[in-house]
Amino acid sequence: MSVISLLSDFESVYPAQMKGVILNIDPNAVLVDIAHDIPPQDIAAGAFALKITVPYFPEGTIHLAVIDPGVGSDRRPVLVESGGHLLVGPDNGLLIPAAYKLSQDIIVRKITNKDLFLTVSSTFHGRDIFAPVAAYLSNGFKPSDIGDEIDDYVKLDFATPQVKDKRVLAQVLFIDGFGNLITNIPGEHMLNFFNYNDKLTVEDRIIPLVHMYTQVESGEMLMLIGSHGYLEISINSGNAAAQLGLGIGDQLWLSAHQSS
Amino acid sequence: MSVISLLSDFESVYPAQMKGVILNIDPNAVLVDIAHDIPPQDIAAGAFALKITVPYFPEGTIHLAVIDPGVGSDRRPVLVESGGHLLVGPDNGLLIPAAYKLSQDIIVRKITNKDLFLTVSSTFHGRDIFAPVAAYLSNGFKPSDIGDEIDDYVKLDFATPQVKDKRVLAQVLFIDGFGNLITNIPGEHMLNFFNYNDKLTVEDRIIPLVHMYTQVESGEMLMLIGSHGYLEISINSGNAAAQLGLGIGDQLWLSAHQSS
Amino acid sequence: MSVISLLSDFESVYPAQMKGVILNIDPNAVLVDIAHDIPPQDIAAGAFALKITVPYFPEGTIHLAVIDPGVGSDRRPVLVESGGHLLVGPDNGLLIPAAYKLSQDIIVRKITNKDLFLTVSSTFHGRDIFAPVAAYLSNGFKPSDIGDEIDDYVKLDFATPQVKDKRVLAQVLFIDGFGNLITNIPGEHMLNFFNYNDKLTVEDRIIPLVHMYTQVESGEMLMLIGSHGYLEISINSGNAAAQLGLGIGDQLWLSAHQSS
Repeated sequence: MSVISLLSDFESVYPAQMKGVILNIDPNAVLVDIAHDIPPQDIAAGAFALKITVPYFPEGTIHLAVIDPGVGSDRRPVLVESGGHLLVGPDNGLLIPAAYKLSQDIIVRKITNKDLFLTVSSTFHGRDIFAPVAAYLSNGFKPSDIGDEIDDYVKLDFATPQVKDKRVLAQVLFIDGFGNLITNIPGEHMLNFFNYNDKLTVEDRIIPLVHMYTQVESGEMLMLIGSHGYLEISINSGNAAAQLGLGIGDQLWLSAHQSS
Repeated sequence: MSVISLLSDFESVYPAQMKGVILNIDPNAVLVDIAHDIPPQDIAAGAFALKITVPYFPEGTIHLAVIDPGVGSDRRPVLVESGGHLLVGPDNGLLIPAAYKLSQDIIVRKITNKDLFLTVSSTFHGRDIFAPVAAYLSNGFKPSDIGDEIDDYVKLDFATPQVKDKRVLAQVLFIDGFGNLITNIPGEHMLNFFNYNDKLTVEDRIIPLVHMYTQVESGEMLMLIGSHGYLEISINSGNAAAQLGLGIGDQLWLSAHQSS
Repeated sequence: MSVISLLSDFESVYPAQMKGVILNIDPNAVLVDIAHDIPPQDIAAGAFALKITVPYFPEGTIHLAVIDPGVGSDRRPVLVESGGHLLVGPDNGLLIPAAYKLSQDIIVRKITNKDLFLTVSSTFHGRDIFAPVAAYLSNGFKPSDIGDEIDDYVKLDFATPQVKDKRVLAQVLFIDGFGNLITNIPGEHMLNFFNYNDKLTVEDRIIPLVHMYTQVESGEMLMLIGSHGYLEISINSGNAAAQLGLGIGDQLWLSAHQSS
């Protein structure tokens, strides 16, 4: 009996079908949704959401993640072992940043034990392959019962922040429910170039780097290192994504503001 | 102690009130949301969502479903037994397609044991009647403790696909989170008239019938038999409902495309 | 082992991070979402949602609620004991109406036992302070292990309905998923001034006070005492908030309609 977390880009009845399949196999599994509102087929956004969330789950958790634009093709199903957690999903990079966040020492297996699958549709491997595999792992199956190790799995790296002439290029990786723009710049990287209370030029705006939202007036823009460890651009009591018209994948140059 | 699934057309605090009521009566019930984003008061959409989801749940599951535009009127509350599952909700057809999906042999009872109810409001029988009844069933009450059999319950059939001059009329029953249009045409019915890789005329468009999304280019339209067993109209990596401007209940004529 | 309910104004991965933290500390906690779709930073809307929901949960439930615009400032974290329930969250009034709904006899403590916290970020005390405190309480910690009583906690009262020249001023406290406008007027208060089947003038409209939605035609407006005990303004089979263009905080004068 394990905790099984679920992440996908499909809402409504599809997560419930996966949960039904799991409870059929392991009635004692503890099911926890991570998120089902990942933008459709956005593997990088899903990988980021998974990466910043898995460290808070107990050792032994099985993470079932399905952002799967290649479903039905020859895209492989994989199981990843890392830091006492298991991750199950498609071989498209989705699981890899989370696995490396848990430990640098990961094992990736191709899922080949078809005895565990439901009748496999060509459109919903989350229900037909990944959910039963997760449930049998929760029931005590060993990773070696699922398939053999591979080393040519699909990797995924978030864009490394580019630096040029003391300017840093940030890319929006995720937008949360408040409209905060979460970028690919790790906090420690940001603090190599800038200091707290610096004012930065972000495209044509001047925005301070602060510790907390309430350091600026309501409605004002700010940047801070978020609770996920990455630079985010926010508006105190406002929605930065809506006001700036920015979305996942958009890029922004940051530089120290030269007061005239 | 049972799995209790929940389906409704109300989000936010109302499902939580039902869950609190259930846990008060059976602290060990395992609660699983099927969906709470059914379009308000759309009994057919709720019935379809329930029908395609209940078969994945374990025998013994109690399905609590509330799409209830007649709440407060003399609409009866019912309990349905089918295939080892129990279904609880309003007598407006909502539960019937799911019950017949589980087995052809169903028993419908009018819920009359008022000792089990909370004080009954005129607007939220999900919380005041259906949730406690589901919880007492989970606690070991028998269906015969809840009420007597009836046979004049409200039935609901999804529109049978019409066929005319080798043309088939499809109706949109459900739209999923990707914008896929799920129609009332069962897969086996579709394959009586058409073959995989046929190109079909759908109103003024030509759309191929394929096995998987990735058989067409990104952004292109396709039809396939979805994981729920029904014909769906989709766009690979796109949102068919938004692009075609179609909603639940809309109808489309399909015919073989005559290449000129 | 307890039921732990969760309410917040943040969706997607953040509730999951809180749940992971809790399951790390108490693997047997039963997690139930109350709502995560509270309008961002709307303490009053969150307090209302909590107040109308907590009474349905079993004694012993721990309610973890986070609407926290002051996070990172010197806003205090608090634990409230009332009627056998525990409530954990920020000292901004959010928990107080729910606590007084459970019992008139409440104890408020400042959370000071930092040994229980994760490393505290300046932006997410829900995960770093409130979730672990809730989990340790579920594990058997006593309120007195968490911190000492205070009596200068932040209070929150919903606007008392104003009455002037037989007119009553209603304020919209909450809008549910159907678009029903839930006001600050308790049912018993309403019935001091008006009777069922009265027609009322609401700004420039005439709306009847009825018992149930189906007493008016589909598409017609109505007022009723909702299942939460407050006056609500609704449209039978329609969305009152959208059609009237009203939001949380908006005010409306009600008076008896003088037929001419």
